[in-house]
Amino acid sequence: MKIVIVGAVAGGASAAARARRLNEEAEIILIERGAEPSFANCGLPYYVGGEIEIRDKLLVAPAAQLRQRHRLDVRTRQEVTYINRDSQSITVRNLETGESYTETYDRLIISTGASPFRPPIPGIDSPHVLELRDLTDADRMHELVTTGGSRRAVIVGAGFIGIEVAENLVRRGLNVTVVELVDQILPPWDAEMVRPLEDHLREQGVSLRLNDSAEAFEDNPTADGNLTVRLKSGASIPACFAVVCIGVRPESKLAADAGIECGPRGGIITNDHMQTNDPHIYAVGDVAQVKDFLTGEPTQIPLAGPANRQGRIAADHIFGRNSTYRGTQGTAVVGVFGKTAAMTGHSEKLLRRANRSHRKIYIHPNDHAGYYPGASQMTLKLLFNPEDGRIWGAQAVGKNGVDKRIDVIAMAIHGGMTVYDLEEVELCYAPQYGSAKDPVNMAGFVASGVLRGDHPVTHVPELQSPPKSPDWFVLDVRTQREFDAGNIGDATNIPLEELRERLAEIPQDRRIAVYCFVGQRGYMATRLLKHNGFDVFNLSGGYRTWQQHHSTETES
Amino acid sequence: MKIVIVGAVAGGASAAARARRLNEEAEIILIERGAEPSFANCGLPYYVGGEIEIRDKLLVAPAAQLRQRHRLDVRTRQEVTYINRDSQSITVRNLETGESYTETYDRLIISTGASPFRPPIPGIDSPHVLELRDLTDADRMHELVTTGGSRRAVIVGAGFIGIEVAENLVRRGLNVTVVELVDQILPPWDAEMVRPLEDHLREQGVSLRLNDSAEAFEDNPTADGNLTVRLKSGASIPACFAVVCIGVRPESKLAADAGIECGPRGGIITNDHMQTNDPHIYAVGDVAQVKDFLTGEPTQIPLAGPANRQGRIAADHIFGRNSTYRGTQGTAVVGVFGKTAAMTGHSEKLLRRANRSHRKIYIHPNDHAGYYPGASQMTLKLLFNPEDGRIWGAQAVGKNGVDKRIDVIAMAIHGGMTVYDLEEVELCYAPQYGSAKDPVNMAGFVASGVLRGDHPVTHVPELQSPPKSPDWFVLDVRTQREFDAGNIGDATNIPLEELRERLAEIPQDRRIAVYCFVGQRGYMATRLLKHNGFDVFNLSGGYRTWQQHHSTETES
Repeated sequence: MKIVIVGAVAGGASAAARARRLNEEAEIILIERGAEPSFANCGLPYYVGGEIEIRDKLLVAPAAQLRQRHRLDVRTRQEVTYINRDSQSITVRNLETGESYTETYDRLIISTGASPFRPPIPGIDSPHVLELRDLTDADRMHELVTTGGSRRAVIVGAGFIGIEVAENLVRRGLNVTVVELVDQILPPWDAEMVRPLEDHLREQGVSLRLNDSAEAFEDNPTADGNLTVRLKSGASIPACFAVVCIGVRPESKLAADAGIECGPRGGIITNDHMQTNDPHIYAVGDVAQVKDFLTGEPTQIPLAGPANRQGRIAADHIFGRNSTYRGTQGTAVVGVFGKTAAMTGHSEKLLRRANRSHRKIYIHPNDHAGYYPGASQMTLKLLFNPEDGRIWGAQAVGKNGVDKRIDVIAMAIHGGMTVYDLEEVELCYAPQYGSAKDPVNMAGFVASGVLRGDHPVTHVPELQSPPKSPDWFVLDVRTQREFDAGNIGDATNIPLEELRERLAEIPQDRRIAVYCFVGQRGYMATRLLKHNGFDVFNLSGGYRTWQQHHSTETES
Repeated sequence: MKIVIVGAVAGGASAAARARRLNEEAEIILIERGAEPSFANCGLPYYVGGEIEIRDKLLVAPAAQLRQRHRLDVRTRQEVTYINRDSQSITVRNLETGESYTETYDRLIISTGASPFRPPIPGIDSPHVLELRDLTDADRMHELVTTGGSRRAVIVGAGFIGIEVAENLVRRGLNVTVVELVDQILPPWDAEMVRPLEDHLREQGVSLRLNDSAEAFEDNPTADGNLTVRLKSGASIPACFAVVCIGVRPESKLAADAGIECGPRGGIITNDHMQTNDPHIYAVGDVAQVKDFLTGEPTQIPLAGPANRQGRIAADHIFGRNSTYRGTQGTAVVGVFGKTAAMTGHSEKLLRRANRSHRKIYIHPNDHAGYYPGASQMTLKLLFNPEDGRIWGAQAVGKNGVDKRIDVIAMAIHGGMTVYDLEEVELCYAPQYGSAKDPVNMAGFVASGVLRGDHPVTHVPELQSPPKSPDWFVLDVRTQREFDAGNIGDATNIPLEELRERLAEIPQDRRIAVYCFVGQRGYMATRLLKHNGFDVFNLSGGYRTWQQHHSTETES
């Protein structure tokens, strides 16, 4: 068996190592265009920013180690330029010598990844317009920020990489502007969830320009740099360099040219064994189209964990094993100046777009018992199917313990579990780690209460959208002091503690929207009013969620 | 409906609040022997140690709040002394006045908790022998350690509370000795898992006396304190005070006296709705016997999370809802001077005792990507059923990210999932949070490999127990340098990188036990040797696991 693997980062390197563990005799050739196989691409922004000080740390499986431990034929600085499916051979160009040669294969694994999208706008090819995909890119940016000259940068795109690069350039002392086409950073999350992170970025000195985009890059040396970035809004921003991070495209041309089927977004189509329409050819990692774990529908989500698993599965299948890929769930995390945003499964916007039946709740629990020092509040949003309580997805943003809760919910989604399972699951509790009712349990309590009809909820858009529904009576059950410090306009304040005695002040013929600061007192008030015959709904997540929504005018 | 709840901490307070949310009209009486309802008993050690500075923080739901928000009739410093089931009434003694009165109930919820066991040894009633159950105990210990006089303390029992008290007394500058009957601290964990924590405690200055016990407490003022603790080993330890933390007993006498059925360990027997043999009486929290989530067998596990859930379920059932308790899984966590031990489900010792079919694996992954600064290594042990791969339990010990992995596995156990699910689950990955192959995935990979026959493993006891099986050939595949720095005696060193060329040095007629430092190179070597026809096993967790076992002589 002769296996040729094209691309030696996450998926390709995993496939190669797995293939060797499954078979000691196979000939395994790993072809990599770059100078190093299996580098830690998720670490590149942190190398640029200096958090990772030693470049060699990024080389997680150096070529020598792959050769010695796994007996792999590792060929770096070589590029596959052509696949001849009829003869089961490929053409390989040696980038050092420029010479090409032919190599045969019994099985071919395409792991060419995805490349940063560079939109066709004037000046995009300027030497001052960078991207951050591989070590060469990182080396270049590292040099620019450490040699002292660069003091201003513009980042185009506020996705994961854009945000990580922004943080790391600020760490290097640069003045950073981030330009984003849509009205929020981190587009996979729902907008209201990332509002606190946008504020946090601004507090750290990042200039955020949402609903804007780059229209031209002009090379013109000024006191502020080599480049002027012209924006759609009309603004011009001088910079030493720009970084384009507006998403990636599967690098599938090699495959497509050979007649291998690709999906509408360019990803190579595979079956559950990662096999393409040519049974001798597999595709793994960011170059492959995957299916959504929850819906089975095709999607394109570039993530390292799935890439590694797909590599394993392709190797398994080559050696006669029936391993299958379960689909991609979209579990992701990003750090932003000491805060964390994590998510798993579907977002609300995705559910809306697909017109899938869903409900949602917000909570703002502490990461651990409030009576123990150092507790910090997070926001957790849970999306679920009202028909059976199955979890669609969850998003959380906060300081500590955010990734933990999303990982627990990711496991629940993996197991096809429901909000009732979140209610009941027994998690670690000591005051420095969690609460007797963990945030995951709390989310389960609230969502289950919604489905059981115990806890009718409403949401900010239903209250604030113009025209505001005229029959809402909005009731703030916080203390007078909290109310005075800021409230939803038109709200009436009756503190929870006085509610039983002041029921006569509440109209019987209108729908009541109750709120408190985070939703707990609102829930108690909702129960109390419901028992007294009112048509009442709790504003999920309370005033805090209202604040998160309120900072934007675009929420529908 | 008139509901009387006896005991107002976790389970009782939860039941009361839930009952009010379910019914606005019910009369709900909450009777508490102590001065405060619903205090944070898990925070007591940290108040003693000064980590929690303000005592009021421990009062998580003050009586005034329970009265105002939930309209509960809260009666503190009152004790229920008798239950008259025929008349559905109780006798209550007012501890302030000494007077007694009778109160009727429609439903009674017993939430009296569990009290520290005080063994009948001489001097146990000395005023210098403390326990730590409630605020009064905490106040007393707080005073002793802050008024400056106390410089030496002996803690009897190295369970959760004993260890937490030890840490907090050291924080106050005391010289602390911990005496434990068995050969390990934290008896719910398996011994080899907590060895590193024992070393860590010793490094922090705690004197650990395992396999020893207190035989007498003698009041005799010396320069070192008021007390001498005489141990079974013959040692005498002077101290200002001793703390007895050798476990708790359900405080079920009140119930038993009324003819309510209790189990062999004293816990009140209930059905799945927390209802006792008297359908008007419920029992929740530490006073109740529970069923094991995994086996359905009766057990006695005092934990705050389950107590809260049971309180909810009792209230639900009283108001006609069919909520059921799913059983206790035993998820627990404890902090020890910056390190963490967490577990969920069954331990190996429990599985052995019950003679349940199980296999185990050890891994020592980093909490996040090794290339990102600050990574720390943890040890994770996974126990599973070889027949279907179902997870029995997991234990982890380390610095960071330990509770996260145990919570994820706790969720998997809740869902009846298998080691194959751990292999596939898609978790958060960015370099500061985890790895593309998360520790949970790694545990799944290794365990699945064991079950598929790809990864035969052996364990330390099989290698080191006398008489050592004579046919093992022990092969260390680390570098010469690592080998020279410390190895398993009788091992032969052939580095993994040289193994293919040196196969002739390995005997074909003996069983081969391979090991490296943590198990990964050992796995590669195992695959390589298996392909070459050897009868080979990888020492699970490698030399590091061997070291953890080796520090004890009692492992069987």
